[in-house]
Amino acid sequence: MSGPRPARLSMQQRPPGRAVGGAMGWGAALRVLADMDGVLADFEAGVLRAFLARFPGEPRAGLAGRRGWLPKEQHQAKIPLCHAKIVSVYESPGFFLGLDPIPGAIEAMKEMIQMKDTEVFICTSPLRKYEPCIPEKYKWVEKHLGPEFVDRLILTRDKTIVSADLLFDDKDTIQGVEPNPSWEHILFTCCHNKHLELKPPHRRLQSWADDWRAILESKRRK
Amino acid sequence: MSGPRPARLSMQQRPPGRAVGGAMGWGAALRVLADMDGVLADFEAGVLRAFLARFPGEPRAGLAGRRGWLPKEQHQAKIPLCHAKIVSVYESPGFFLGLDPIPGAIEAMKEMIQMKDTEVFICTSPLRKYEPCIPEKYKWVEKHLGPEFVDRLILTRDKTIVSADLLFDDKDTIQGVEPNPSWEHILFTCCHNKHLELKPPHRRLQSWADDWRAILESKRRK
Repeated sequence: MSGPRPARLSMQQRPPGRAVGGAMGWGAALRVLADMDGVLADFEAGVLRAFLARFPGEPRAGLAGRRGWLPKEQHQAKIPLCHAKIVSVYESPGFFLGLDPIPGAIEAMKEMIQMKDTEVFICTSPLRKYEPCIPEKYKWVEKHLGPEFVDRLILTRDKTIVSADLLFDDKDTIQGVEPNPSWEHILFTCCHNKHLELKPPHRRLQSWADDWRAILESKRRK
Repeated sequence: MSGPRPARLSMQQRPPGRAVGGAMGWGAALRVLADMDGVLADFEAGVLRAFLARFPGEPRAGLAGRRGWLPKEQHQAKIPLCHAKIVSVYESPGFFLGLDPIPGAIEAMKEMIQMKDTEVFICTSPLRKYEPCIPEKYKWVEKHLGPEFVDRLILTRDKTIVSADLLFDDKDTIQGVEPNPSWEHILFTCCHNKHLELKPPHRRLQSWADDWRAILESKRRK
């Protein structure tokens, strides 16, 4: 992203057409997408914990030294040989369901979905090895956030074609078929991206204790 | 839909921004979404077949007499008592994976994905009872269309926020939070919607033997 993101089409810009839903009518609501791993569910801590439990004698990269988004990339950088073991950890049954929530994430999501004129969706990219990852993602959302959020779960390996105002995501570069996604990507700080220097207008959310409410307000159409 | 759908923002309408992907650059490609049940996978025939196998002595509504989208609605209209049995059929393990492809669907999708300047995604709404439905949808796509299409599978209960030019879907009314979806909905003819009279500019695709290529061409930006 090298320029400010446009808001989605305003009511005035929209062509006439039947309103087919939307509690707020005419899309007046702010639409927020929250990534799952690294934003709601603590994938990184889960990898480390499961790796230590499964391979107690192995060297490993500490969270503090991580670089890059994929855990296999981070670990490859320091310990090339453990790549397959890392993958085996996060492809194991129970891994995704057992992830702890990121501190404050559950409270933030539950507050956000109650906000006036605000639509909240969880937008997550499943592993190519979709089992057991995908059913466990659904179960995780049901367990920690409840059925209301299960209905708001979007699984897609390409997030660029999901239309929204904001996307909170810990992945530093989000690519897909759409060169100009409608959302502004807010980089959610995580061990693997904290070394990145973002230039304005790129923005971060340091954690769910950071002022996510102000970011939402900054995107509302006046 | 009561008016013609706009194309997605053209290159000229787009604000400056970094191109973050897209083989065609600047979204020049036509983006097509295909629903799964009733468009690619023969859900209706699968329900009837599984129902007959499981409840051989039960009365049932024939495919020809169907009305409405949900099988439980269709069956309720004629045989109120079998609602729970219908649901138990399509919630059973193996149901989704065992569905036959809609005639011509596999060939059409494989041809479409090879077309120049054309992006194809499968966009499907999972059941609220997400297991075994969801993993079986992934397996079905892998089995019949291959891993390339697994990467292009989008699971969402709200299709209105997925940005595309076309959506082929057998459901007659597609609602969600976005009152003006970017796609034109092409009603894919199915036993439960064939009685509906569509007024222009609403369009149908009668089957995959119908001229889907002409519908794609009609949406390309000149």
